[in-house]
Amino acid sequence: MLMISEVVVPHLTIHYSTNVDAQMDMQALCSALGRVLAESGIFPLGGIRVRAVACNAYAVADEQPQNAFADMVLRIAAGRSAEDRHATGVALMRCAEQHFASLLAEPFFALSLEIVEITAAFSWKTNSIHARLAAANAS
Amino acid sequence: MLMISEVVVPHLTIHYSTNVDAQMDMQALCSALGRVLAESGIFPLGGIRVRAVACNAYAVADEQPQNAFADMVLRIAAGRSAEDRHATGVALMRCAEQHFASLLAEPFFALSLEIVEITAAFSWKTNSIHARLAAANAS
Amino acid sequence: MLMISEVVVPHLTIHYSTNVDAQMDMQALCSALGRVLAESGIFPLGGIRVRAVACNAYAVADEQPQNAFADMVLRIAAGRSAEDRHATGVALMRCAEQHFASLLAEPFFALSLEIVEITAAFSWKTNSIHARLAAANAS
Repeated sequence: MLMISEVVVPHLTIHYSTNVDAQMDMQALCSALGRVLAESGIFPLGGIRVRAVACNAYAVADEQPQNAFADMVLRIAAGRSAEDRHATGVALMRCAEQHFASLLAEPFFALSLEIVEITAAFSWKTNSIHARLAAANAS
Repeated sequence: MLMISEVVVPHLTIHYSTNVDAQMDMQALCSALGRVLAESGIFPLGGIRVRAVACNAYAVADEQPQNAFADMVLRIAAGRSAEDRHATGVALMRCAEQHFASLLAEPFFALSLEIVEITAAFSWKTNSIHARLAAANAS
Repeated sequence: MLMISEVVVPHLTIHYSTNVDAQMDMQALCSALGRVLAESGIFPLGGIRVRAVACNAYAVADEQPQNAFADMVLRIAAGRSAEDRHATGVALMRCAEQHFASLLAEPFFALSLEIVEITAAFSWKTNSIHARLAAANAS
């Protein structure tokens, strides 16, 4: 059974320079950030999609070879309060800063996050996960 | 000969979890979605750019290993009617749902689409394809 | 020492079809575009992050095998003047057109740029590069 809705939530995309891979487990970071979103209580578990995109060509600041970046963009449905959006941003950054602590301890790393809203009238989803999670919760 | 305009249209970007590759031909999906855009009649053929980005690290919903996603964002020049945008969204979703039918039949897949508008005043293009297509149409 | 601010600037992301790689050095392009941003004088050097994402599945225009694209999106903090944004866009396009000259000379290439603004109230950064550059400038 599919659940179809016009509200799409939430997408977190991380672009990062490939030199980060030597020091970071990006899969572990995706999982941790997904848990932050789940624990916020304002997003349905079945809608959480965190993903990382490795960028193998890049130019960061003064182009020292150690320079690296991770840039996160969270897309959520419009309508959440400014307080909820702010709290979500702070929680995601705290989680990411912990994972990137060793990189942030050196003067070569730029971490960032932006939250943007999705206009529900021009978004669509077909999601086969929600029904499974609803059934599991009901059993 | 180059045709230069400040209106950029249309870009369709698909982010997807790499576990989709075992079951889906993403190139065939890109081609099919490109045809949907061409057949809509509201976009110039020479401006259509569909592309897929594989994400090898991701966290979807409750992180079952089968969980997968495909997330589409269509960027079009501002100025199309709400009706045209809505019809385009519905047609793209119908096409994608057909290609992802086997994944949507299992309770582990999230498919989504968002349409966003590009402000013409702050976009640029240099496109060498339009003139070739115009010449082919004229001959 | 970390410098923390709620203003994130500037991110330039290039999506491109992988058939471009045979003719273009995307790393050189990233470096050149980063220099254009630095030389504009309106962005702090420590905040510049240019990156390229290769798309191995794509459908461009009439799907001739030579068809290719490079699509750039520049995200900057809201608040720059329209004149500054326009001048930045023109300078980036001029640089990219020079690098892609051989592709633009054939009728199969689409190059584009869009500038979008980031709302400072919903963006965050933790950047360990700024302090190093400030110290270098002060010494």
